[in-house]
This record gives sequence, structure tokens and C-alpha cells, in this order.
Amino acid sequence: MSEENKIGTYHFVAEPFHVDFNERLTMGVLGNHLLNCAGFHAEERGFGIATLNENRYTWVLSRLAVEMEEMPKAYESFSVQTWVENVYRLFTDRNFAILNADGRPIGYARSIWAMISMETRKPADLLTLHNGSITEYICDKDCPIAKPSRIKVSEDTVAGEHRAKYSDIDINGHVNSIKYIEHILDLFPLQTFREKRVHRFEMAYVAESYYGDKLTFYRQQTGDNEYDIEVKKNDSEVVVRSKLIFK
Amino acid sequence: MSEENKIGTYHFVAEPFHVDFNERLTMGVLGNHLLNCAGFHAEERGFGIATLNENRYTWVLSRLAVEMEEMPKAYESFSVQTWVENVYRLFTDRNFAILNADGRPIGYARSIWAMISMETRKPADLLTLHNGSITEYICDKDCPIAKPSRIKVSEDTVAGEHRAKYSDIDINGHVNSIKYIEHILDLFPLQTFREKRVHRFEMAYVAESYYGDKLTFYRQQTGDNEYDIEVKKNDSEVVVRSKLIFK
Repeated sequence: MSEENKIGTYHFVAEPFHVDFNERLTMGVLGNHLLNCAGFHAEERGFGIATLNENRYTWVLSRLAVEMEEMPKAYESFSVQTWVENVYRLFTDRNFAILNADGRPIGYARSIWAMISMETRKPADLLTLHNGSITEYICDKDCPIAKPSRIKVSEDTVAGEHRAKYSDIDINGHVNSIKYIEHILDLFPLQTFREKRVHRFEMAYVAESYYGDKLTFYRQQTGDNEYDIEVKKNDSEVVVRSKLIFK
Repeated sequence: MSEENKIGTYHFVAEPFHVDFNERLTMGVLGNHLLNCAGFHAEERGFGIATLNENRYTWVLSRLAVEMEEMPKAYESFSVQTWVENVYRLFTDRNFAILNADGRPIGYARSIWAMISMETRKPADLLTLHNGSITEYICDKDCPIAKPSRIKVSEDTVAGEHRAKYSDIDINGHVNSIKYIEHILDLFPLQTFREKRVHRFEMAYVAESYYGDKLTFYRQQTGDNEYDIEVKKNDSEVVVRSKLIFK
């Protein structure tokens, strides 16, 4: 298969209600587009959720790291390319490039996914999925950003608290992966976004949370412009960990 | 001008992260699509924000009423038609039809807009805008739902409170019109959405709120399945009023 065929390209416009007060696309909306592109790309190649669901399997996002040199401005066109970098037995690495209206890369993203059985919730073997056909899509396109890091938060300041509500809950009955991104950004005062922009955003999805769960956000500053965040549900289990680098 | 020309039609798909746990498009996402369609339609006809901004004018949404017989399901295609029903000196009525994948109407919406000068914040005379050219687009397509009603809330139960955060703030520095819809739906327990669906949703935008404002939500039950909601900022000024009818 040609390398061209392995890459999916999807076009977007930065909608007026999807930008922040700086007129730049929000990280949450970009994350949503990336996950949609992952879905489109997989579906078009026969290993998407709709196809898997017939076999009672579903994709689960484990890690997401986004690094942007620049965010699309309101009303600007941009596109997202996505491809599979690696397939292991239990995980697959999927990368993204975000291109501006001229086709110049303005950022990249990396993600790690597992596949689980919806009946047993146990991970499935990706190398046997459709006789390993997913491996045919492995593509060696460059993704010049660091891999998702190990985030360790030694419980620190409680920076915020949120009770999971109707709008937080997704199609699977869990708190929406994208909503965590919004809630984490909301820990910072508006002033931060006036002076800086989010350069890198990492999410590690550790466990699911549900309607009514109390989410507590612990934040630890790890550098001048760097923060590690841990979200626990109901004062016990870690749900997500995140790293934010401003510039 | 033919009636056909006066109606703008825009196509969408219900994205997986834009549906709720019932796999139905959320009212907030639908509202976002409607406002975008209003923008596209106006822009294409020479009276959109980008055009007006050159003249330092902008559209301000005053009322929105949405009535749905059915919400698009995850991955379903749907389309939105929009047209101008009336133009007065200070307001214009813009209507919408929401069509399912087969082109059958599954809902309608009505909205009322004013145009203001960004310098003086005073309303502009729509009948003189571009020599009254907006009136050429008045279209008598049927919109078989009731007009936005007068909502009166005699201050009742405090049903919720929210401090306006980074993600709430839009391109104009105000709390995003769509975010109010989400926060209002979030006043209701998940159980409500399990048993019922939102049949009609009305919003009256009365004043702007800003980053850091404390929003207090007062809710009054006015019928078996009917609620009036008032949102005040900082314990004083009314910001929005809303009516919700479940079915």
C-alpha cells in the first residue's frame, strides 16, 4: 500500500463558538476533531468503532499529547492528517499533524489506544484483529514531538472541584474525554491565557468516571510554565493525569 | 429573488462526542450549529459579521426557541435550513428547520437578533443597513412552532451556581450563548434525560456576563414537564431567562 493511502486528511474551519477570547481554537475543540479523525480514519479502513461494535469491541483512548506552534484563528481553515505509527499486541500508536490553510504544519499530536471487549472490558489482541490487517496501515511519516510522558503528581494543592453533570457524560455513560480537557484548562485564570498560550497538552486516561462523581483536581507546578495535574474521583481513585506546558 | 435563493441549507453529521448518553445530539451542539448557520447565511448574503465588522457593527442574539420532535442520533446526517422571516427597525426574526437524513423536518427554531454598533453598543437601524438590502431576503417559508414567549420567573429555588471560567468565555469576552444552554441542562439530574427528552428550549439573552462572574440559576416548575429558569450574575442583574419543556 502506498504511504499516501495510509494517511487520512480531514478539513475543518475554526467556528466562531469554538474559539476562545483570543480568537484561537480551543484545545478541547481541537481534541474533539483529533478523536473524530481517528474514528473516520479507522472506519474508512475497516477497523472503526461501527465495524468493531458488531464484534462487541471498542477503542479506548489511553494517552493523548498535543503540541501546537500556533492555533487556528476564528474562521480559518485547517486540516488534520492522521496515521498509525505502530501496532503492538495491546496498544496502537496513532499520530496527527495539524496543518494551516496553506498546508504548513502548525502542530502535531500523538495518541495511544487499546481495544477492549465491551462484554468483558478486557483488552483485545490487536495483532489478530481482522487477521492483523491493521498492521498494513503502519506508516512511517514523521511526528516530530516527544512521546506522551509519565506524569507523576505528588498530591498537592486542590485547584478545583467539579461534580460530573449531564453535559459531561458521553455516549458510553462516562465523563467525556474532551470535557476533562476543558475542566483542566478552567483551573487557570483568564490572565494566564492572556499572557501565554498552551504549547503542549498531555492527557493520560487512567479510569472512567460517571455521572455524579466528585472530581477533584490536584495541580503541581513543575517548572516556570509547566504544570502536572491529577484528577481523582470521590477522593480516591485517579481518573486522569495531565501535563500542561505554556509558552 | 426566488424563495429558494433566500433559504440557506447546511449539512451536518452528529459527531460521537456531540451526543449525550442517549446517543442523541445535545441541545447545546444543535444551538451552536443554528448560530453558525445564521452566520453563514448572513455572510453569504452580505450582511454577516465579517462584513459588518468593517463598519463596526455586530449581530447580537436576543431570543432563541428550539422545538424538536426528534434529535439526530450519533453518526446520523442532518441538515439545517435558515431564512429571514421579518425585518423591523431594531430586530430581525430568523427561522430554522432541522431536517433528518431523508429531508423530513424533525424540528424548527426561531431566533430574534439585533444589530449594535461595537463602539457605542447602541442598536442600529436594520432598515437602512446596506440600503435595506436585508429586506430583500424576507421569506415566507412556514415555521410551525410558537414564537419565543415572555418568561417571567418569580425568584424561586436556587438550583445551581457556576463561576464563569476560561472555557465559558467566547470571542467577544462574554460568556458564550451556548454555554448557558449547557449549564441550564446541567441543573437537571441524569434521570430526567433518561425518562424524557427536551421538546422545547427557549433562551432570552438579557445581559452579558463575564469571566469570574458568579452565575446563580433560579428554577421554577410551571407545569408537569415545564420549567422557567432565570440566571442572575453576582446576585443582582438578570443575564438570561429560559424555558424548558420536556416530553
